[in-house]
Amino acid sequence: MKKAVVLLSGGLDSTTCLALANASGFECYAISFDYAQKNHAELNAARKIAAYYGVPHKIINIPFDQIGGSALTDAAVDVPDYTGSTKIPPTYVPARNTIFLAFALGWAEVLNIKDIFIGVSSIDYSGYPDCRPEYIQAFQHLANLATKFGVEGANIQVYTPLIHLSKAQTIMLGTKLGVHYQMTVTCYRANENGYACGSCDSCILRKKGFEAAGIEDVTLYVSK
Amino acid sequence: MKKAVVLLSGGLDSTTCLALANASGFECYAISFDYAQKNHAELNAARKIAAYYGVPHKIINIPFDQIGGSALTDAAVDVPDYTGSTKIPPTYVPARNTIFLAFALGWAEVLNIKDIFIGVSSIDYSGYPDCRPEYIQAFQHLANLATKFGVEGANIQVYTPLIHLSKAQTIMLGTKLGVHYQMTVTCYRANENGYACGSCDSCILRKKGFEAAGIEDVTLYVSK
Repeated sequence: MKKAVVLLSGGLDSTTCLALANASGFECYAISFDYAQKNHAELNAARKIAAYYGVPHKIINIPFDQIGGSALTDAAVDVPDYTGSTKIPPTYVPARNTIFLAFALGWAEVLNIKDIFIGVSSIDYSGYPDCRPEYIQAFQHLANLATKFGVEGANIQVYTPLIHLSKAQTIMLGTKLGVHYQMTVTCYRANENGYACGSCDSCILRKKGFEAAGIEDVTLYVSK
Repeated sequence: MKKAVVLLSGGLDSTTCLALANASGFECYAISFDYAQKNHAELNAARKIAAYYGVPHKIINIPFDQIGGSALTDAAVDVPDYTGSTKIPPTYVPARNTIFLAFALGWAEVLNIKDIFIGVSSIDYSGYPDCRPEYIQAFQHLANLATKFGVEGANIQVYTPLIHLSKAQTIMLGTKLGVHYQMTVTCYRANENGYACGSCDSCILRKKGFEAAGIEDVTLYVSK
């Protein structure tokens, strides 16, 4: 059975990605990151989701707060409401996916796994540069040069099955795969119990996705 | 004055690299990593060296021991003596430079710095894949795609001034720049006071470097 490391934030996309890798016959190893994110509830969601799928789950502690520069990790910067702007928002975390993928790569090499899944999308997203196809291609190229593993001939692949899917398409795919979206936490301002604010970027993209997919939104909102 | 983030392990190469960036007129910001390395003494050396050059110094905690797979971080795997083999040795740490550079990139972006120095060498080194020129080029390409900063037009540069220098050439360069090599700790098995074992890969490469350069080796060895 082929193995894969799957990045799992506990949100809608990464959970769909895990369900897809799992349904595609990969033996999955989930990796999450405790990076002093304000929406700490997503980590609890990730734990529950990994347990639900019965996959090994590693949570790596990353001190992003030592670096700063993001509304997601800096107590002094508020997470804004959705604006619809195409500019990169203050929730952007400098080098986040590069750091996450680098750890996933290290773990994959130790486990002798050459397939990595990440649920990034370049449609219905927040404009983060490290979610684009050209970025992922560059990381895959780097991964094969960076590791003993790659140098010795392993062809490291970074799979991004959702990269060209709209949020609605992702939700339709996940629903077919039996994903329980009420287990997932997408909101940047989720409370400790995982209830969503309903008005941040992530919430609005998620809400619109369920509407466009014609699927009932089972998200728990604080304002409902 | 141009600013640069400089990766500083506390060893011979990174210290020479810092001295060079400093002498070249860059206002330097040093970054080190506490990654549960056995040769923890190098971090104390990094602190002293950063203080000596009067540069801001950030130490990031990275839980490499959560990933394993290296003699440098795994208590169950001994650091071997120098063998002269061209194979990648057990001291290789999976994805180490990718993780280090990713953090340096994140910090650089927050500080609005687009120049990063890393003292890797592909001559007289331990055969690590993430020290080669093609790897560094791939990381620089990635860095410009990964960040808001890069997307907005900053041309992020990763400088590797030592990459084609032998250890002897690096030592001759550093000596001209006034580097106090007795402050640096290279040994993989250095004791708490920074005394070197004299027989690991790193020690042998360093010893041979001083010999070839015709410069007195001021390293403090436990066996001397």
